[in-house]
Amino acid sequence: MTSFLTGLIGSGIGPSFSPPLHEREAAHHGLRYVYRLLDTDVLGTDVGDLVRTARRFGYDGLNITHPCKQAVIPHLDGLSADARTLGAVNTVVFEKDRAIGHNTDWTGFRESFTRGLPDAPIERIVQLGAGGAGAAVAHALLTMGAGRVTLVDADPARATSLAAELTGRFGDGRADAARADDLPRLLAAADGLAHSTPTGMAGHPGLPLPASLLRPDLWVADIVYRPLETELLRRARALGCRTLDGSGMVVFQAAHAFHLFTGRTPDTGRMLTHLTELIAT
Amino acid sequence: MTSFLTGLIGSGIGPSFSPPLHEREAAHHGLRYVYRLLDTDVLGTDVGDLVRTARRFGYDGLNITHPCKQAVIPHLDGLSADARTLGAVNTVVFEKDRAIGHNTDWTGFRESFTRGLPDAPIERIVQLGAGGAGAAVAHALLTMGAGRVTLVDADPARATSLAAELTGRFGDGRADAARADDLPRLLAAADGLAHSTPTGMAGHPGLPLPASLLRPDLWVADIVYRPLETELLRRARALGCRTLDGSGMVVFQAAHAFHLFTGRTPDTGRMLTHLTELIAT
Repeated sequence: MTSFLTGLIGSGIGPSFSPPLHEREAAHHGLRYVYRLLDTDVLGTDVGDLVRTARRFGYDGLNITHPCKQAVIPHLDGLSADARTLGAVNTVVFEKDRAIGHNTDWTGFRESFTRGLPDAPIERIVQLGAGGAGAAVAHALLTMGAGRVTLVDADPARATSLAAELTGRFGDGRADAARADDLPRLLAAADGLAHSTPTGMAGHPGLPLPASLLRPDLWVADIVYRPLETELLRRARALGCRTLDGSGMVVFQAAHAFHLFTGRTPDTGRMLTHLTELIAT
Repeated sequence: MTSFLTGLIGSGIGPSFSPPLHEREAAHHGLRYVYRLLDTDVLGTDVGDLVRTARRFGYDGLNITHPCKQAVIPHLDGLSADARTLGAVNTVVFEKDRAIGHNTDWTGFRESFTRGLPDAPIERIVQLGAGGAGAAVAHALLTMGAGRVTLVDADPARATSLAAELTGRFGDGRADAARADDLPRLLAAADGLAHSTPTGMAGHPGLPLPASLLRPDLWVADIVYRPLETELLRRARALGCRTLDGSGMVVFQAAHAFHLFTGRTPDTGRMLTHLTELIAT
């Protein structure tokens, strides 16, 4: 019987929920499966060396997180079409003699959105945050058919740059960049708000925009999942907005990686319940 | 819930039964447990580097086999009393900030002998083979109270050297070295024959001594376990000798290592059944 050794490479990943999420789901499938944290703060920051060594020491695959999702690419033997398009890898599978990069961040967000906000209108979307997670979120939204995603980031150049990438990929007018000053006008005309900055996390409390800009017929999707109910979601729910918390993206990116590692189809409802328990403890 | 990542460092270990033996037993305990092979022929022969890297990459412990059981010692932070005495380590446990070496080879043989040949007389024992396995076997026999162990090895200096070590440890007269020419005289006066050379293994067929030297009231213990019934054991059984095959030593050394890694007490009967199945397939 096969066993699976997997892990996560990234910086400051000690609090990650990935080990219990993966290992418990694997146990339900009767798999021998261990998931380890390989923290670059401890092991060193040469991600290529980490990937090669993990492979030599018996790993079957890896998840990759901040700040290594781009840096890992030159050290791989191939990329999935998604990972190549996004220029970011969050999952590496060691095949017979090749290390192949995948991206399950965007498919994770897509599945979370599809399940959590079915039939939500996506003609006009305002997205806060144009970093790595934001790139995956915007890609998912546009792949699902969003008419236009308008990006606002504390670093305006980052928003502009991601908007240019997205229009190159999805067509003129599908994405643009704006300033925070424009948010009142933009949100007044938007169907939904996608939030992909760290604001609202335990270490970054608060709101990413003035609560007065929210209105009941706006959906609000947050990628923050610690806590599950961010200040943003709390305010939005109080107004009656449809909301989506960050747990789905975490679970579905993990579930898709689990499938790539093992070939098994995980029970994502079970994984969601488990993540909720983990966050609560 | 804790998970366990363990492995084996050694040369040419591809056919090892340790991964399934450990992993299946762990599954019976509901443990998340993966056992990997770290072959020095593939990874390089600096065992210190292998041990340090395995630890950094999430391993909880290692088994160590030929040719690394002595070479690993300078790279550890401490040794059990047994491992220090024997000068050989087959199990390394990564504690909080220390790597501690243990030896379960000799305790494995002792338990196998005690269970498989209970009440066998051990006043005079002839032992063929004075290498690493032979050192563990002789140490076990003398610890159990053997009157004298007489060592015969194709390399007479190795027999002399091990005999000197053993008399230093257990007292004058408890061990000595002899030549193959002396075997007729020695075996005529012996209670039992312990065999710890590779002869009889699949790759080294044949007998380690003339079959004519066996007699029905001699017990015969073999450490070879592939095949379980060596030519030596087949001949001995045909004469009516009490015999002990090599499966017990394999299982009990693995079981003792498993206990060191996990704190759990494995079901050695179940492991013996499993090893027998593995050898048969």
